[in-house]
This record gives sequence, structure tokens and C-alpha cells, in this order.
Amino acid sequence: MARAEKAFNSYSDTAFYTHVAPGKNRIVYIYGHLATYHDALKETLGVGKRSRPDLAALFLQDPDNILAEYPSLIELKSFWNNVHTELNELFATLSAVEWFKRHNAMTDEDFMKDPSRNRLAVLLNRANHVAYHVGQVVLVKPENPV
Amino acid sequence: MARAEKAFNSYSDTAFYTHVAPGKNRIVYIYGHLATYHDALKETLGVGKRSRPDLAALFLQDPDNILAEYPSLIELKSFWNNVHTELNELFATLSAVEWFKRHNAMTDEDFMKDPSRNRLAVLLNRANHVAYHVGQVVLVKPENPV
Repeated sequence: MARAEKAFNSYSDTAFYTHVAPGKNRIVYIYGHLATYHDALKETLGVGKRSRPDLAALFLQDPDNILAEYPSLIELKSFWNNVHTELNELFATLSAVEWFKRHNAMTDEDFMKDPSRNRLAVLLNRANHVAYHVGQVVLVKPENPV
Repeated sequence: MARAEKAFNSYSDTAFYTHVAPGKNRIVYIYGHLATYHDALKETLGVGKRSRPDLAALFLQDPDNILAEYPSLIELKSFWNNVHTELNELFATLSAVEWFKRHNAMTDEDFMKDPSRNRLAVLLNRANHVAYHVGQVVLVKPENPV
């Protein structure tokens, strides 16, 4: 997340409305998408409630749409900060044993069959998801990053 | 890696020479970059030797260069397959205890200070690195992926 924040924070407010490649998502969409996904992560892990379920339609169900009305960057940045501060606090309370427990997107029965599908696996999956989008966001920079 | 292979394998040989965004890396470079990085991973983890140290200059030190002579796609695909088959075999022999041992890119002294910098951490880091580039590679597809 530190790396993702560094990437997003390197852009001006205007640059947030740049597409990462022609016809592809804008930075603002990816930013809202990650924040909304991580807001929902609290429920997937079974450690809290989403604070903005209303954003799921815009940033999870719908693709980027230049005609859609997104929250302002000020609002999105505040949402991003709140979500990640809350997740950090929640994660700090989880013991190692709790990370290996079942997450809420699967049944007890499925978990019995495959205990590797635990909360830690969800977290690692989300880390890969962040990296996937950061790889796109950095394309807006003038240099060619590796 | 399965997801990365699926992404790369969805492109024709011609499409491998497409830039992921204007002025950015071509798919072929990212493909060679990941294969070469993972070839070197054997040495970083201290479990084997690189098979193609000669590719480090092209795919790790140098950025993508349309004037550079890259190995053919047939050669690169064979290299990719060999590297990942070998890694899979090596990983299958490593016990949980061995994953928590020091990797070769740090000293014993540093490892004493921070034992979380182990082989498993390197592997997770490389998984994020793959996801970062896969996020770029998929941009060449006509749809707008999330």
C-alpha cells in the first residue's frame, strides 16, 4: 500500500483524470476502485462493515465512465485514507491464528476441504490486485518504468 | 504465474511486439523481463543457478529498445517454460522451515535484525512484481479490464 500511495501521490489532481492507456481506465477510477474494494475487504474478512456501500456500483460493478459523476478527489482521498487507517488498525488486532481462519466469502464446508483459502490468502490476493493496478498507474509517468 | 501465462498466451506472436501504452514497454520485453528475473530468482533464493545470465543485460539492466536484438519468441517461450518448470520443481523440495530461512541477497547480520526478510518474503514480492506487469500486459486487449 505504501508503494501504491507513492504512485498515486506522484500525480497532480489534473493527472488523476488521465487514462492509463488510450481507451483504458483513468487513474481516478483505479483509485476509487481500490479504495472501494478495500472498504469491502472488511466484510470479506469478517472484521468490520463497509463505510461506503453506495460506491460499489460506481467503482466495482461499473467500468470507468467519463460521463459518470464520481465523488470529488478530496472526498475520494479522504475515503482512501479512512479505509486504510481502519484496515491497519483492524489488522493490528488480528493474531496469527486469526489470519488462518476462514474468510466470509466461503462456507465452512469449503474451508474444511481447502484450509489454505483463509484470511491471509485473501490479503495476499488483494496485495497482488493492488500491484496489478499500480503497474497501470505508473504508465502515466513520462519515463518508461520497469 | 498461471494468471500471467493466461494473459501472455492470449496474444498472437505479432501482438507480442505491441507497446502496452504509447512509448512504454512492449509485451515481448515484459515477457523476457519476467523470465530473466525468475531465472535469477534461483540464485537469490540460493536454490540453483541461472541458466541464461547473458539475458540480464537485455531484460534487467536495459529498458525496452526497439533497436535491440531480442531472442526469438520461440526461444523466449522455451526459456520461460524451462525457468518456471525448474522453479516449480525446486519449490516442491523446500520445506516450510526452509522458506523461512535467509535469502542470498542479504547478510546473516541483517537477517538477525529482521527475520521477516526470508525466502518466502522474496517469493511474495515476486508475485506482486508479476501482477504489476500483468496489469500492463492486459491493456493491449480491446476491452477495458478492471
